[in-house]
Amino acid sequence: MGIWFSISNFNSLKRLLIGRPMRTAELHAQHNKLLWYIALPILSADLYSSVAYGPEAGITELAKFGNEAKWYIIPITISTIVLLAILILSYIMGVLAYPNGGGAYAIAKDNFKQRWISLIASSSLLVDYILTVAVSVSAAVQAVASAYPTVTPYETVLAVLCVFLLLVVNLRGVAESAKILAWPTFGFMACMLLLVFTGFFNETKHGFVQPSTPSFETIPKGMTLLLILKAFSSACSALTGIETISNAVPVFREPRQKNAIKTYVALGTITAVTLLGFAYHLYVRGISPDPNNTMLSQLTGYYFGHNIIYQLIIWFTFIVLILAANSTFTGFSQLAAIVAADGFLPRGLTNRGDRLGYSNGIIVLAGIASLLIIAFRAQTNALIPLYAIGVFLSFTVAQFGLIKRWKRVKGSNWKIKFIINTVGGIITSVVAVIFGVTKFTGGAWVVLIVIPLIIFFSLAIHRHYQDIADELKIDLQLLKPEANRVITIVLVSGLHRVVHNTLSFAMGVSQADLIAVYVGFDDESIRKMEQKWEEWGNPCRLVTLKSKYRSVLEPLSRLIHLIEEKDLNAPIQVIIPQFIPKKWWHNLLHNQTALLLRLWLMRHKDVVITTVPYHLKK
Amino acid sequence: MGIWFSISNFNSLKRLLIGRPMRTAELHAQHNKLLWYIALPILSADLYSSVAYGPEAGITELAKFGNEAKWYIIPITISTIVLLAILILSYIMGVLAYPNGGGAYAIAKDNFKQRWISLIASSSLLVDYILTVAVSVSAAVQAVASAYPTVTPYETVLAVLCVFLLLVVNLRGVAESAKILAWPTFGFMACMLLLVFTGFFNETKHGFVQPSTPSFETIPKGMTLLLILKAFSSACSALTGIETISNAVPVFREPRQKNAIKTYVALGTITAVTLLGFAYHLYVRGISPDPNNTMLSQLTGYYFGHNIIYQLIIWFTFIVLILAANSTFTGFSQLAAIVAADGFLPRGLTNRGDRLGYSNGIIVLAGIASLLIIAFRAQTNALIPLYAIGVFLSFTVAQFGLIKRWKRVKGSNWKIKFIINTVGGIITSVVAVIFGVTKFTGGAWVVLIVIPLIIFFSLAIHRHYQDIADELKIDLQLLKPEANRVITIVLVSGLHRVVHNTLSFAMGVSQADLIAVYVGFDDESIRKMEQKWEEWGNPCRLVTLKSKYRSVLEPLSRLIHLIEEKDLNAPIQVIIPQFIPKKWWHNLLHNQTALLLRLWLMRHKDVVITTVPYHLKK
Repeated sequence: MGIWFSISNFNSLKRLLIGRPMRTAELHAQHNKLLWYIALPILSADLYSSVAYGPEAGITELAKFGNEAKWYIIPITISTIVLLAILILSYIMGVLAYPNGGGAYAIAKDNFKQRWISLIASSSLLVDYILTVAVSVSAAVQAVASAYPTVTPYETVLAVLCVFLLLVVNLRGVAESAKILAWPTFGFMACMLLLVFTGFFNETKHGFVQPSTPSFETIPKGMTLLLILKAFSSACSALTGIETISNAVPVFREPRQKNAIKTYVALGTITAVTLLGFAYHLYVRGISPDPNNTMLSQLTGYYFGHNIIYQLIIWFTFIVLILAANSTFTGFSQLAAIVAADGFLPRGLTNRGDRLGYSNGIIVLAGIASLLIIAFRAQTNALIPLYAIGVFLSFTVAQFGLIKRWKRVKGSNWKIKFIINTVGGIITSVVAVIFGVTKFTGGAWVVLIVIPLIIFFSLAIHRHYQDIADELKIDLQLLKPEANRVITIVLVSGLHRVVHNTLSFAMGVSQADLIAVYVGFDDESIRKMEQKWEEWGNPCRLVTLKSKYRSVLEPLSRLIHLIEEKDLNAPIQVIIPQFIPKKWWHNLLHNQTALLLRLWLMRHKDVVITTVPYHLKK
Repeated sequence: MGIWFSISNFNSLKRLLIGRPMRTAELHAQHNKLLWYIALPILSADLYSSVAYGPEAGITELAKFGNEAKWYIIPITISTIVLLAILILSYIMGVLAYPNGGGAYAIAKDNFKQRWISLIASSSLLVDYILTVAVSVSAAVQAVASAYPTVTPYETVLAVLCVFLLLVVNLRGVAESAKILAWPTFGFMACMLLLVFTGFFNETKHGFVQPSTPSFETIPKGMTLLLILKAFSSACSALTGIETISNAVPVFREPRQKNAIKTYVALGTITAVTLLGFAYHLYVRGISPDPNNTMLSQLTGYYFGHNIIYQLIIWFTFIVLILAANSTFTGFSQLAAIVAADGFLPRGLTNRGDRLGYSNGIIVLAGIASLLIIAFRAQTNALIPLYAIGVFLSFTVAQFGLIKRWKRVKGSNWKIKFIINTVGGIITSVVAVIFGVTKFTGGAWVVLIVIPLIIFFSLAIHRHYQDIADELKIDLQLLKPEANRVITIVLVSGLHRVVHNTLSFAMGVSQADLIAVYVGFDDESIRKMEQKWEEWGNPCRLVTLKSKYRSVLEPLSRLIHLIEEKDLNAPIQVIIPQFIPKKWWHNLLHNQTALLLRLWLMRHKDVVITTVPYHLKK
């Protein structure tokens, strides 16, 4: 009954939230090519937004060893920027190789015959996309909570609400390339650069070593290389999202490869300046981690007080982090659809919804991300250890794919490209190992179990689809459909309009082998039925069965078994009359025998089931 | 998919909890007639168990005005006993009139033409049965929590667990007349009488006025008649369950009426002695309400300490209160089945389950009682204000029914019987009004809204069944089934084994008007399909439709509409192939198009739906 209700009312709610359905033809109408400096902010929300939590994650790790350990953030940030440069250079190679856009999965599929290698890329990216949503939304909510401490207790609820809004927006379908999305990221970039330069101005006035600056080059007790690497791997969470531009080469104006590369260089420069400046000021000001006040909020508060600029920075941070999560919805659902189309994920992920987005992927992402947010109570620092490993795994796979490609395809300057990707591949694989080791106990083990599991299930799914395709394949010349002899059973519960309707239908489709079946619970009712049937002029053969257990299933099951034994080849059709009441709640007043019978027969017997509806007028 | 899982696993769990299904013939095998002194404890659990909370409920009301108000419990208890005597006398009249057992509903149905009067009796009894379960189980758990304060925080959980156990036991089916159920009530009676006589012995030794005894006949400030009546109505919660014996006359040994009357007198005497003695000792000892220690536990602890007798009384109280709830399950489900058989409640309530009990009624009772327990956190005192009104309403209806009967039927001594029931009827109606007024703000208003609502819905349900019966009725001589011309649509999604199987079936049931329908999402796939169909030798007419919205529903719907317009009288049959995977979770890997299509067609179109299963081998 619940089902009726939801079906009848779900549709109007869906229309309200999602909007009118769109035609498939509208799919190709939405692309208008972008100038590179408009594409820059649109495609950089994911990468650039992570400056808001990357350095903070690094310092949080270091601060566990006291203030003296904080200076390590400077060399760590420099290493991060070097890594960023190498990655961007490697990805520019990707742009050159795949001008139609190629994610790690596409590159791996193109260059490795072994399916599991491309599945490493896809699974680890899918896992990281989920984590990106959880981390970005949590960081966004934490940014607002820093400015308005009253919302701190509701962080989890607010974060889940944000994911729900993102779900609705993505089911409605926002074109990833909508130009309006450029402005918040522009604004956020401007604010961050303003913050960085205000910091330098402050330092030229008050000195590069201020009273609050922790000591430099002291080595605190208990500090080991492993712990420094751990802080480094946390800080590297700022590097996720680099792949976006290389996936999106087709949205650039011609010459698109050149424009994409220009964008990569510009984005890399701005990110490097921001990261280094931000981390440096955090160090100079000796900012300490505070779970209820992000470091960005602390630093901004220090330079500007809680004035309009502080508000602007907080709200731009919020919007950009939400945009980062938003772009991930497109990335996740598209990747899942591509992998599903190859038969490695449930085929339902390839279905386009009413608004042309891959709705199932979008819903799956929102669901899992919400669960993660609830499990980790929207705390970014708890989620960071799980993060970025997947991205670096897929980076590594992509690099080695490109290495193979250069060796195979060659082309102009292929040796330089080969060397760049070899260096990149070695470094990203080293970084991936560092991540795995240093974050292992902090939660990375979960990811390192989940990714192989996804690969395992992907292969199992592929095998299942393959098996079924083999099973269903027929030779059109040899196997042609021929009319079967069908044995038809009509269930009658008495003699009334519904039975009249059903029997008239049954006589229309089956003349020779038609049996009406009546199940009675006592001899009296059976006798009466037989007598009335006689009175009705014996429309067809009537079989009466007695049920000892007040259930239609058991005697019907026996009858089917008997027919099957007699005539092995003829399919059996069971015709069930079904009331359709006028109002859904009227279903409560009628025994759902037809429904239960259908479910039971479907599960237990190899019979064709026909439901003849009778729409009640009252 | 969840449905598959639950269906496949639910059955074995059900067998474990409920036991093997029983034959209808076993229904009449279980009755063996009872001696009156065995019937006494079996049928009295509901009434007698309420002495455990009746006086306590009264004193709790009085204690709000301080110790000086407590003496009112003596006149209140005496009034309660007078009321008990009148009720028993009235019910003996019922036994004389209906030797086959007659509840208030049966009496009202027999004597009033107006249906709503008997519905007052049934609805108010049903509501009170639900409250009985909630109150008895809560009181039982509170009794144990008094002895073992550690369980106090878990009262709600434990009470819900008890209801669940009662649900399972009743679905298994415990014969209400099982002799084993006699012993706990015997034990409880013995314990209560022991307590009462220990009390008197104590008072002969230490004086009938002890240092702890509150003053007598003082009138505390603010005490009004209304407040005394409120305490009286709370104390009267001890009187529920009187109707049980009159409903169960047939289980007595012959002469059954005489034996039933004997039982009524004996039970009345024992209850009166216990009530008065218990209430008196509570007064003498000046016991005060304590939410974590019932008064019965306090008094027992005072006389015996926490020794074996205390333990016996606590555990007998627990068991008897649970038995009271248990007998209510039978009462509720039987009454609901009788009312449903008359067409005033959903017909599903008349279905006997595997173990011959009315399973649906049992489940409904357990569900609502659990919700009440959770809402009121298993606190008896919070539930008492809702309680007993229903019972007194149904008492009143029964009395007036009997009055009408004596006037109509007459018979020996009819005038005495008439006078008894008239006095009884007046008093119970006055009491019902007192209950309604005094408990109104405490929660009784809910009951006074719910009962009319149930009556309203009962009448609506009856009208619905009547309408449908009229709609479905046919004249067997005039309307005979005739073979319809059926237009058959087969959905084909490609050319493979499933389609071959489905088409062979379709050709078997429909030769002339068979149309294969293919829905494509682009021109290319439609062209290919038409070509392959040609190759297959055109097994039947093929119609190809293009879907602009990536959905089969919309083009199929248009086609059905076209056919309907062309040929109004021919029923349309849609044949849908359906995969049945080997493992339930494989359903996740296949689009549930067949299922969704069926639901949608069922809801929106007047077509016959045939599902041809194809059981996958892998």
